[in-house]
Amino acid sequence: MNSYVVGIDIGGTKLAAVVADKNGNILQKVRKPTEAEKGYQYAVQLLLEMVDQGIHRAGLKRESISGIGVSCGGPLDTKTGVVYSPPNLPGWDAVPLKALIEAEFHIHTVIENDANASALAEWRFGGGRGYNYVLYMTMSTGIGGGIVANGQIYHGANDSAGEVGHQILLPNGPLCGCGKRGCLEALCSGPSIARRAQAAIRKQPNTHILDFTDGSIDHVKSEHVLQAARNGDALAISLMDETAYYMGWGIANLVNILNPEIVLIGTIAVAAGDLLLNPIRRTVADMAMQRPAELVQIMPAQLGDAVGDLAAVSLVIGN
Amino acid sequence: MNSYVVGIDIGGTKLAAVVADKNGNILQKVRKPTEAEKGYQYAVQLLLEMVDQGIHRAGLKRESISGIGVSCGGPLDTKTGVVYSPPNLPGWDAVPLKALIEAEFHIHTVIENDANASALAEWRFGGGRGYNYVLYMTMSTGIGGGIVANGQIYHGANDSAGEVGHQILLPNGPLCGCGKRGCLEALCSGPSIARRAQAAIRKQPNTHILDFTDGSIDHVKSEHVLQAARNGDALAISLMDETAYYMGWGIANLVNILNPEIVLIGTIAVAAGDLLLNPIRRTVADMAMQRPAELVQIMPAQLGDAVGDLAAVSLVIGN
Repeated sequence: MNSYVVGIDIGGTKLAAVVADKNGNILQKVRKPTEAEKGYQYAVQLLLEMVDQGIHRAGLKRESISGIGVSCGGPLDTKTGVVYSPPNLPGWDAVPLKALIEAEFHIHTVIENDANASALAEWRFGGGRGYNYVLYMTMSTGIGGGIVANGQIYHGANDSAGEVGHQILLPNGPLCGCGKRGCLEALCSGPSIARRAQAAIRKQPNTHILDFTDGSIDHVKSEHVLQAARNGDALAISLMDETAYYMGWGIANLVNILNPEIVLIGTIAVAAGDLLLNPIRRTVADMAMQRPAELVQIMPAQLGDAVGDLAAVSLVIGN
Repeated sequence: MNSYVVGIDIGGTKLAAVVADKNGNILQKVRKPTEAEKGYQYAVQLLLEMVDQGIHRAGLKRESISGIGVSCGGPLDTKTGVVYSPPNLPGWDAVPLKALIEAEFHIHTVIENDANASALAEWRFGGGRGYNYVLYMTMSTGIGGGIVANGQIYHGANDSAGEVGHQILLPNGPLCGCGKRGCLEALCSGPSIARRAQAAIRKQPNTHILDFTDGSIDHVKSEHVLQAARNGDALAISLMDETAYYMGWGIANLVNILNPEIVLIGTIAVAAGDLLLNPIRRTVADMAMQRPAELVQIMPAQLGDAVGDLAAVSLVIGN
């Protein structure tokens, strides 16, 4: 009986292969460094071995596996299963990942970008359970997103939908990693919050933010701003409020366009909780249309560090 | 054989009932004024009579009709078929339109907001034929929108998705009809273009825009700006370029979020053609991410004045 699945999580620094049952219980997990500089052939070969190792350690055989889900940085083509040079995987250009995996195992394989796969995992196992219209947003080194409507990922025409972090709010604002200016990501990602904090401290050094670092302005990170804000530091609070304003503005636009029941926000929003979420909620109530704004809930994502494994697994667990 | 359908188009000033075959050919059309001030009971009773009249004139019987589609201003609930005080239908609060129609005819009835129904009509009969991801935008007295993905309207959690005209670009910008500031609609709808033109002419009266009116600045409309731009008037061209910039910015955000194959824009974009669409396309190429921007086409809507009838009809024509 093939009632188990395999999940593969491909990150820029770590590879993981997990074996799970159809309820998403992880039975075995194998981890290795990606060593991206060795090229994709090395990593793919390693992954194939890791999958076999996981299956073996779980006391199963290949025949017990009904599907393999792969969560990987995009851009990628979910129909052909080809990966196109993700920023965190230099040299992975036009890698036929689905074909390589299926050639080895002869098991149905689904490739998905990590933000979309995480959105599906939050819908299936996390904060999105029971909701028909879920918007998931990452908020860490970047701001990504995934849209799940009626249990299906909304892919768009070439698997590019959900790039919610690259909506432009301030066309003359700070430069974004994508090359444009004033994207939501360039204002509210972890590094963007840190950059705004560093500039603000240089102008207004009367702050306790530096108490949480080694004293160097250059070493200020978003988590130091959050810690200082929790301790009542005025500059840190104003930086968090500014972050909430931009997040709220961006989410208000998304609420008007997508009308989600729930918006789940990861990492930084999970760490900050209501300190960040409450001013985001107020801004959304203020800037979005009344009918969709009344309905939407804005909540922290629930899966935390487990999201990577469950993202991959959720791609091949049936409805 | 019930191979015909009825479409009902409810506007603030006009009611229409059409009878069509399943290819969308309109066999009969009955029109009456809405006389909204007489209340919804009057209009609904009138509509029921108009439907019977249309069926009779087409030489058919009620038994020949397989479905009734109703296109109406929102907000409304597509599941219950209840209409909630559309701005153009004062007093239509919580009108159980679907139930009232089905009680009379015992024919399956589908209620949809007009922008969504128009998007479906453009997908089925107009510029969106053959595309899996279509974004339709109205651009006349307001800016509305409808999203059609894989032949289905994307409704969102409470039928509020697609309010693309209320994404906020300039939070301190001009007041919008919705009560917020700096919505795309407050910058690029017909009345918004006229308002910007009137303000610009007062500052810079050296323009030929007034040649197309009775000479009164207060009477300047968006079509006068377009006419003057076609004739090479510098101020009019800069107003159209400004309009294209804001439209392009808003569409770039939508392209990143929704990844459509085609964006179809109505009325003003149809009238202006490439004079407006080319600078919109350049702005989208500049502001959207490369992968979705390379794919998307930005085109005028195709159905013109026929969209109202076909919008209603397309709701009850099968795939």
